[in-house]
Amino acid sequence: MTEPTLKFACPVDVRFQDIDIGGHAHHSRALIYFEEARAAYWREVVGRPGLDDIDYIMAQATIRYRARVLYPNRLEVRVGVQKMGRKHFEMAYEVRSPAGDLLIAGGSTQVMYDYHTQTSKPIPADVRAAIEVHESLTEGRAKP
Amino acid sequence: MTEPTLKFACPVDVRFQDIDIGGHAHHSRALIYFEEARAAYWREVVGRPGLDDIDYIMAQATIRYRARVLYPNRLEVRVGVQKMGRKHFEMAYEVRSPAGDLLIAGGSTQVMYDYHTQTSKPIPADVRAAIEVHESLTEGRAKP
Amino acid sequence: MTEPTLKFACPVDVRFQDIDIGGHAHHSRALIYFEEARAAYWREVVGRPGLDDIDYIMAQATIRYRARVLYPNRLEVRVGVQKMGRKHFEMAYEVRSPAGDLLIAGGSTQVMYDYHTQTSKPIPADVRAAIEVHESLTEGRAKP
Amino acid sequence: MTEPTLKFACPVDVRFQDIDIGGHAHHSRALIYFEEARAAYWREVVGRPGLDDIDYIMAQATIRYRARVLYPNRLEVRVGVQKMGRKHFEMAYEVRSPAGDLLIAGGSTQVMYDYHTQTSKPIPADVRAAIEVHESLTEGRAKP
Repeated sequence: MTEPTLKFACPVDVRFQDIDIGGHAHHSRALIYFEEARAAYWREVVGRPGLDDIDYIMAQATIRYRARVLYPNRLEVRVGVQKMGRKHFEMAYEVRSPAGDLLIAGGSTQVMYDYHTQTSKPIPADVRAAIEVHESLTEGRAKP
Repeated sequence: MTEPTLKFACPVDVRFQDIDIGGHAHHSRALIYFEEARAAYWREVVGRPGLDDIDYIMAQATIRYRARVLYPNRLEVRVGVQKMGRKHFEMAYEVRSPAGDLLIAGGSTQVMYDYHTQTSKPIPADVRAAIEVHESLTEGRAKP
Repeated sequence: MTEPTLKFACPVDVRFQDIDIGGHAHHSRALIYFEEARAAYWREVVGRPGLDDIDYIMAQATIRYRARVLYPNRLEVRVGVQKMGRKHFEMAYEVRSPAGDLLIAGGSTQVMYDYHTQTSKPIPADVRAAIEVHESLTEGRAKP
Repeated sequence: MTEPTLKFACPVDVRFQDIDIGGHAHHSRALIYFEEARAAYWREVVGRPGLDDIDYIMAQATIRYRARVLYPNRLEVRVGVQKMGRKHFEMAYEVRSPAGDLLIAGGSTQVMYDYHTQTSKPIPADVRAAIEVHESLTEGRAKP
């Protein structure tokens, strides 16, 4: 199995309001940090810049907490698509400190969704092509 | 393998502010809903009522989104401990609509943590005992 | 000047995630607590139950913090309309503890808004009438 | 009366999660944007870098919404102290778009607070001096 490449990186500033009574970012913020990177990927890699272009819904998410996220801090959040099915795609994430320490890792599965008909839909051809080119995927999977 | 029992239930009101541009609760809110039930469990089952009594940190969380969470809504969030190790414990969650539909499911792994020494610590005996009694666990596992 | 009546009350549960590093609800949560009461008022007093029925935008808000909001806690949030103009209306809020202590007070000004044309609009006649009846307002103002 | 100078500026990235069902940042986010600038001011102007150094509590906040905050967006948030009393200080805020448009304005009153004794305390001399130098205040007030 190949190592995730996660070429795409996005800086995310921790906010004071992310910090909970424990003195570190509340664990739910991991999904917010992932989301900022995913949204930037959707704009810049997939080429869909608008809020209305986010035409997928979350099916699953997994988060592994490795170290505390402190404040103030500028995180580097990496994201990549590791697998595409007909209607869904799987992403992996890494959140690192400025020093490069891995703070949070995770993955998520998204399903393309038509908000008008409220049903799932196939991944559009241009979305699929843009992701395959960026990720060097072959038939929806990372190359062996 | 036994079915999760998840005897403990906690009502959680969806807030307007949980709703994102898609018209449903933002996916990060799943962790907030889980947390309200987990905190109530810690108060009522484990018998530790104070904020300072939350002496564990999150190691991992998994969320499976089954249906949209709408507003206004009073959710029923169920939680239970399914396994205890020496220092960690695993919980399962179910978020249901008033009609009983499963909206979100998930799990999390917590590690007991000493905030003063900033290291993990064993599950205290009274915590372990309270959970075993409530969950009818035998040696840290659900009965076969 | 008459005392605000604020007849309408709505319970709001404090969430663990509202609590910041200071051990009390983050000050931004005041607006969330106000909002839950305002949304309930819009559904129950004004008679507009849907998310699409919230056809106003915020113009101004003022918050006065009187005492710390702790967790766990079920707040009583009171809200009322104190003045209506042609296109805007002014609300007052009180957040109280279960013991009746005033924790937060505040006010907000909303402007009726047409999201399609992205311009302000007059307060619809049925909205105005429902508010006047509930609040015993005379010509858009509290009775002297 | 002198115009607020608000020399201190801090960039704040809007997050996708700030956006509500109306397609713009939820109105409560104004306080979060203010806070990021205030925390940076406390670190950089006042010279107190740590989380434990935030030894004040909010007494009052006022927000005036001028235009919608959209996503993605890098805001410029300006903050300054306009008045100091013995125990409290008043700040003003401006949130601007990259093009310089005023999106949100506001103010807040903070009271110095001793978390151990849970009572207010005077503004420490070094804090007062650092603010007076930065803001060119004379006896706690902006120069006429």
